Amino acid sequence: MAELIEPRVLKGFRDFLPDIELERKRVQGILEATFERFGFVPIDTPVLEYTDILLGKGGGETDKQLYRFQDNGGRDVAMRFDLTVPFARFMAAHVQELYLPFKRYHIAKVFRGENTQRGRYREFTQCDFDIVGVDSPAADFEILLLMRESFYALGIDRVQIHLSHRGIFNRALQRLKVQDKGIEVLRTVDKIKKIGEEAVQTQLKQLVGTVAAEEILQFGKPESSFLATLEKITSIAGGPAEDTERLHSIYHWFQDLGIQDSFLLDPSITRGLDYYTGIVYETFLLDLPGIGSVCSGGRYNDLASLYTKERLPGVGSSIGLDRLLAALEELGKKPECTGVTEILVFCLEDRLFGDYHKIAQELRRAGFATEVFPEQRKLANQFSFAEKKKIPLGVFLGSEEKSRGVFSLRDLRTRVTYENLTLPGLTAKAKELLGKQ
Amino acid sequence: MAELIEPRVLKGFRDFLPDIELERKRVQGILEATFERFGFVPIDTPVLEYTDILLGKGGGETDKQLYRFQDNGGRDVAMRFDLTVPFARFMAAHVQELYLPFKRYHIAKVFRGENTQRGRYREFTQCDFDIVGVDSPAADFEILLLMRESFYALGIDRVQIHLSHRGIFNRALQRLKVQDKGIEVLRTVDKIKKIGEEAVQTQLKQLVGTVAAEEILQFGKPESSFLATLEKITSIAGGPAEDTERLHSIYHWFQDLGIQDSFLLDPSITRGLDYYTGIVYETFLLDLPGIGSVCSGGRYNDLASLYTKERLPGVGSSIGLDRLLAALEELGKKPECTGVTEILVFCLEDRLFGDYHKIAQELRRAGFATEVFPEQRKLANQFSFAEKKKIPLGVFLGSEEKSRGVFSLRDLRTRVTYENLTLPGLTAKAKELLGKQ
Repeated sequence: MAELIEPRVLKGFRDFLPDIELERKRVQGILEATFERFGFVPIDTPVLEYTDILLGKGGGETDKQLYRFQDNGGRDVAMRFDLTVPFARFMAAHVQELYLPFKRYHIAKVFRGENTQRGRYREFTQCDFDIVGVDSPAADFEILLLMRESFYALGIDRVQIHLSHRGIFNRALQRLKVQDKGIEVLRTVDKIKKIGEEAVQTQLKQLVGTVAAEEILQFGKPESSFLATLEKITSIAGGPAEDTERLHSIYHWFQDLGIQDSFLLDPSITRGLDYYTGIVYETFLLDLPGIGSVCSGGRYNDLASLYTKERLPGVGSSIGLDRLLAALEELGKKPECTGVTEILVFCLEDRLFGDYHKIAQELRRAGFATEVFPEQRKLANQFSFAEKKKIPLGVFLGSEEKSRGVFSLRDLRTRVTYENLTLPGLTAKAKELLGKQ
Repeated sequence: MAELIEPRVLKGFRDFLPDIELERKRVQGILEATFERFGFVPIDTPVLEYTDILLGKGGGETDKQLYRFQDNGGRDVAMRFDLTVPFARFMAAHVQELYLPFKRYHIAKVFRGENTQRGRYREFTQCDFDIVGVDSPAADFEILLLMRESFYALGIDRVQIHLSHRGIFNRALQRLKVQDKGIEVLRTVDKIKKIGEEAVQTQLKQLVGTVAAEEILQFGKPESSFLATLEKITSIAGGPAEDTERLHSIYHWFQDLGIQDSFLLDPSITRGLDYYTGIVYETFLLDLPGIGSVCSGGRYNDLASLYTKERLPGVGSSIGLDRLLAALEELGKKPECTGVTEILVFCLEDRLFGDYHKIAQELRRAGFATEVFPEQRKLANQFSFAEKKKIPLGVFLGSEEKSRGVFSLRDLRTRVTYENLTLPGLTAKAKELLGKQ
């Protein structure tokens, strides 16, 4: 006999067993339905792309994490590491066939060969949604509203979205005459939740001096209300402008919809990337502060400037589905897995398989997920199968019952059996036991 | 300005624009619901695996088509080229955590760097479903029934599943004392639909001589009925045995369910692979014979013998989703794409955005997919957007109407406007116009 190959998977990659895959599909389905209720439509792009497309100006961290190789035709190719770069390439390629503003969502696997410490995966699922082709407060508001609605749809109402505006921050840096250190300041302030205020203060002082550091720290601190914070940062930035007006509009719309409590103006949010130009945001679960942001993003000036001259401003957000699934489980918002099959037709005599399949078809037509045990085995074996597969109901039919045209139905959870049921009686009883209409 | 990168995709790879992606999701959703109604559960496996896992005994065609490379850790890895090999590895790894018989479905992308002539893709979606851990006629029957049900669920009832049994064919070859040429004979017979009977006859004669060739050709020809064909092949195989009895059982169950007309006993079906050991089948659309089989598979003795000593017999089937989607379109079974958004709230005055978002939320709660045009632009621009996005209804609100607490609703398809509607009136009219409950 040949030697066996060990059935291992690559580090950072995972198999998804049915219970987990069903839960992933459930959550994905809720998100998709929510996005579509807001008029967002799905797209998909290839897993594999030309490396120059994915790297763009490239280099740096991304480069090292890339799954990159030469294909059989000698092309330099790589697996996508996020959904933003493929989306930019997609918009540049298809903007003429589409319409603007274009609202899309994309839920798909991405690949990063990064260090797998800290429970990170090398293959994971991202869920991105963006509005492209418009630079307006109403589009910003819509993304924020949709973020909130998505978490509510998943049963999470204790959610808080922290938002800020990079334009106001940039104006403050300009007023303090430290705009040339902009990116370093951004990245330093961005660490405040991780390393604490004192450490950030020390680093800022070294970077821009004591006075500017003090004002920047002041800038980053939320006041007692959205409007009070807005007033303070407006002043530090040198007065009102389009950016602060935009936050005013957005806040009034929060009030119009009565949802202002889900949003916090938190000027310490900067999103380290120089990519963002307008509002930026992160989402925290009030009952799980430790896991960090579960949905982040912001507004960008120009999505696809590497690939087209057409200017495409946009605003978007991204959910890490793996982290969200972990959060739902920890919050107890993952419904108890009840299995897929609702009724198992037991095999008592294999010459009755025709009847078993007939009753199964009838039950499926009546709306029950139904399967027939496909072999005559000991009843204990079939019961154990039903238990492992979490099937709540069993149907039994032997020759004697067949001759009388009746069935038995057993609630496998309570172990109560209902005998001598006709087909309509069986269906009605099963509906009652499963709480179905 | 930096030079632009051309936003191209790799040959054999595709972007999916919203209309196509929505249709793919619709079809996939119908298949998933059908599989789950039969108690099949979903799994997923990594896109990337160790090459030795994917190649197994390996070599040959597969090897050349593989997207294979060294990852950053120096591992020899490759992208999955089908869903069967990963499933075998999955079962070997997880059989102890699962239950048998295990019924799974798996819909996912696979990758083959093959020649892209003849409209073949290098990235395409497969849809596999299998019952593993049991070798019984009832399991064979269930897969055949589920294949039929899947096409019916998609609105295709003019479907015919051609089936045969490799065991009976092997017995015939044995009786004719040509079993040592088994695989070559199989592959020759398998070509009959492609190259015609005469060519197959010539090749068979060269392979096994005139007499055996004649009997093999006779074996391959369906008679006027399932039972007549079964009788003939039973005789050529040397008499009844478990294999012919199995086909008898399956046929009787077809009759019990009144579905026998969807199945043809077609002994020319062999499925070239030496992998199969029991029933084998292919599915043809009666209105599109030219596209060949859209769903094929068979029974195998042992799924995961490369990775585990545990014997796992099974029966399964595979649908090529891309070919199926093309078929649905050609058959006119693809519903006219109506877009996702049902109601567009037009922006007449941007200071009313709070009201627009409020009415949109109300309409979403009433069950309408609703979006707000996110910027004050010329009405012509907004109308053109609605048309391109195939949005059927528009809601209008100006200051004057706001002061009276009423809205206008326009059917953008018929260009009829309904004015002075209260919110309940608006909802009722929109339901009526969209034919919603």
